[in-house]
Amino acid sequence: MVQQSATLAINEQLRERRAAGKRVLHLAFGEAGLPVLPEVADVLARSVDRNSYEPVTGALDARRAGAGYFTRRGLPTEADQLILAPGSKPLLFALLAALDGDLVLPKPAWVSYAAQAALVGKRVHGVPIAAQAGGLPDPDALAETLRAAQAEGARPGVLLLTTPDNPTGTIAPPELVRQVCQIAEQYGLAVVSDEIYRDLAHEGHEVHSPALELPERTIVTAGLSKGMALGGYRIGFARLPDSPFGQALRDKLVGIASEVWSCLPGPMQTVAEYVLSEPEPVRAHIAASVRLHQQVVRACYAEFVAVGASCRPPQGGFYLYPDLSAGQTSGAEALAGRLLDEHDIGVLAGTAFGDDPSAARFRVATSLCYGETEEQRWTALRSDDPVALPWIAESIDQLRTALRKL
Amino acid sequence: MVQQSATLAINEQLRERRAAGKRVLHLAFGEAGLPVLPEVADVLARSVDRNSYEPVTGALDARRAGAGYFTRRGLPTEADQLILAPGSKPLLFALLAALDGDLVLPKPAWVSYAAQAALVGKRVHGVPIAAQAGGLPDPDALAETLRAAQAEGARPGVLLLTTPDNPTGTIAPPELVRQVCQIAEQYGLAVVSDEIYRDLAHEGHEVHSPALELPERTIVTAGLSKGMALGGYRIGFARLPDSPFGQALRDKLVGIASEVWSCLPGPMQTVAEYVLSEPEPVRAHIAASVRLHQQVVRACYAEFVAVGASCRPPQGGFYLYPDLSAGQTSGAEALAGRLLDEHDIGVLAGTAFGDDPSAARFRVATSLCYGETEEQRWTALRSDDPVALPWIAESIDQLRTALRKL
Repeated sequence: MVQQSATLAINEQLRERRAAGKRVLHLAFGEAGLPVLPEVADVLARSVDRNSYEPVTGALDARRAGAGYFTRRGLPTEADQLILAPGSKPLLFALLAALDGDLVLPKPAWVSYAAQAALVGKRVHGVPIAAQAGGLPDPDALAETLRAAQAEGARPGVLLLTTPDNPTGTIAPPELVRQVCQIAEQYGLAVVSDEIYRDLAHEGHEVHSPALELPERTIVTAGLSKGMALGGYRIGFARLPDSPFGQALRDKLVGIASEVWSCLPGPMQTVAEYVLSEPEPVRAHIAASVRLHQQVVRACYAEFVAVGASCRPPQGGFYLYPDLSAGQTSGAEALAGRLLDEHDIGVLAGTAFGDDPSAARFRVATSLCYGETEEQRWTALRSDDPVALPWIAESIDQLRTALRKL
Repeated sequence: MVQQSATLAINEQLRERRAAGKRVLHLAFGEAGLPVLPEVADVLARSVDRNSYEPVTGALDARRAGAGYFTRRGLPTEADQLILAPGSKPLLFALLAALDGDLVLPKPAWVSYAAQAALVGKRVHGVPIAAQAGGLPDPDALAETLRAAQAEGARPGVLLLTTPDNPTGTIAPPELVRQVCQIAEQYGLAVVSDEIYRDLAHEGHEVHSPALELPERTIVTAGLSKGMALGGYRIGFARLPDSPFGQALRDKLVGIASEVWSCLPGPMQTVAEYVLSEPEPVRAHIAASVRLHQQVVRACYAEFVAVGASCRPPQGGFYLYPDLSAGQTSGAEALAGRLLDEHDIGVLAGTAFGDDPSAARFRVATSLCYGETEEQRWTALRSDDPVALPWIAESIDQLRTALRKL
């Protein structure tokens, strides 16, 4: 049986704890924690009469906007390479259902990939990430895993990469992406590149998509949940390769999508079209979000480093994946439990991401401490020094105090 | 490989034909064909700031409204028996993934049940419907199929019923529901009752839910796509039984939902809460819709009867399932093809619903002829005699002319 997604489960638990009057520092859930851009809210409010079923792949105008989005990012794309859906999660599920062979996953990786593989009856081969960056497997370990898997008669077929990465908050450098894609090509794997955090790459960091390295067999998934903080709108999209492989895959995905969810809701098609055409208000909103995420996650990173934790420096999004194994005898779950019980801080143990249970690693999502009210969140978004805002400073203090006591 | 849903596929084909300038009578797609109630549009427009991830089962207020909806229909329900989702289609998919055993389906049945069963690797046992009504299998044939299936070592586990039915437009009488549920109980089946057309029962007809007969093992699914004509909003919900079976099933569904679609979009939760609390404007809108659907589908029924077709009289929704086998030598697909090619009329061949290919049966959906403009559709909805409106009369004339020539 597939359990409830660990991230969604802890989010509900922490909300209940708060509702019961506890002051909880919620660092466990990957929600962007920011308000809706007023222009987007207006677009949705003006699309409420869109009550017809939409094409399974998405409305043409929305798909054209999506094609432009990728083309502007160095991946020339036509509208018929796009599929829109109610979130990128259903698309990832449909991809795993449609693509042949076992799933090869970096370890750690986002909680839902392995669970989705289980739902469609796929075996998972986990491969540790490199020291340099998460979101893709260490190349040597990948080659060794694939060789061994084939030797024992297994059929690895799909490699799932995440850049910028969840849970490590890192961006794989081009050379690493190249090496991993070469190995994928050599073993005939399809690559699914989850780039939902792409627009949240920090200043000076850039995403190098696997679709540049293995264009004929790489599918890119993304959505508006992270960059635009629209998790509750449930808008995702995928870019299929312009190749016979991509066209055959499209037919399979249309079959699955039409039988599992039909289409992205009509009013959300208009939102997708507006956001993916990237008008100035959208660009400015994302730029401000990046500044805020970057400053807060870096401040939290400094606290972990200060107590001697080992942690990759954050390069995109709003996650840290510290390793406290050096000073701890307890594993990830026990440590996350102590943070919650003794310090009212919610994090997600590395085990949820498929990591080694004995290692004291956990994911810290810093994006839900931007404020309790809309006003606080707008202030944070517009601030040059958000870390100095009292409500954010207080959260970082709470984290510091806990880390020193641990 | 699962093909694109036949209903969604023909809808896209017919739209393209129309876009190319042809006058096509679109009787092939199960869309309610009516505008958004202004009060509902306002509710959505006022909920655009709801951008957070929602609980997997749905927001408590929306689930409470859903519990009230069922309670008012003679099925006492608590909020924790409800699950909301982006359409009832994902819920049906998750139910088939979660419930054990093979699927038992009336023949004909809605196009997606068997396709979803294929996606989750379930075998399907088709059982012909009774002469009286569709949406549930003939009791004697059901008992015989189950006996034979068990004898050969198969494991039938789930019986899917539809009332009011798609494609036959009929409502199963209580005695038939009772008999079928008794057999389901005897063989230990779970029953999934798709009641998405429930609120479109015609005057003088009432739905008798299988959940009244087999309360501990019946799951009811429904949504706002048909009664409220909100197909493009993608709002579905399910009522789980208040039983240990229902509680265990809920846990499984939460696991699947959290890994496949996360939640119903936030703004749509508010719409669900508003509609399911059934304020006066919603009740009046549905009542007007029922009057319109009923008059138009009855007028079309009369045309089929006039040319000697065999057809069950419509009792709910906006479908007919005529049988022209008496005057035809060609099967369903050829007949549907002739209607399209020679008469520009789109219907869906019975084969799409799992029916016998040699029988000249097809589904006629009469709900997309209410007008090409919002104004025409509102006029139809408010008319005492919609069949006399020129644009509706013209569609019925086109149907009559075609039927006489066939």
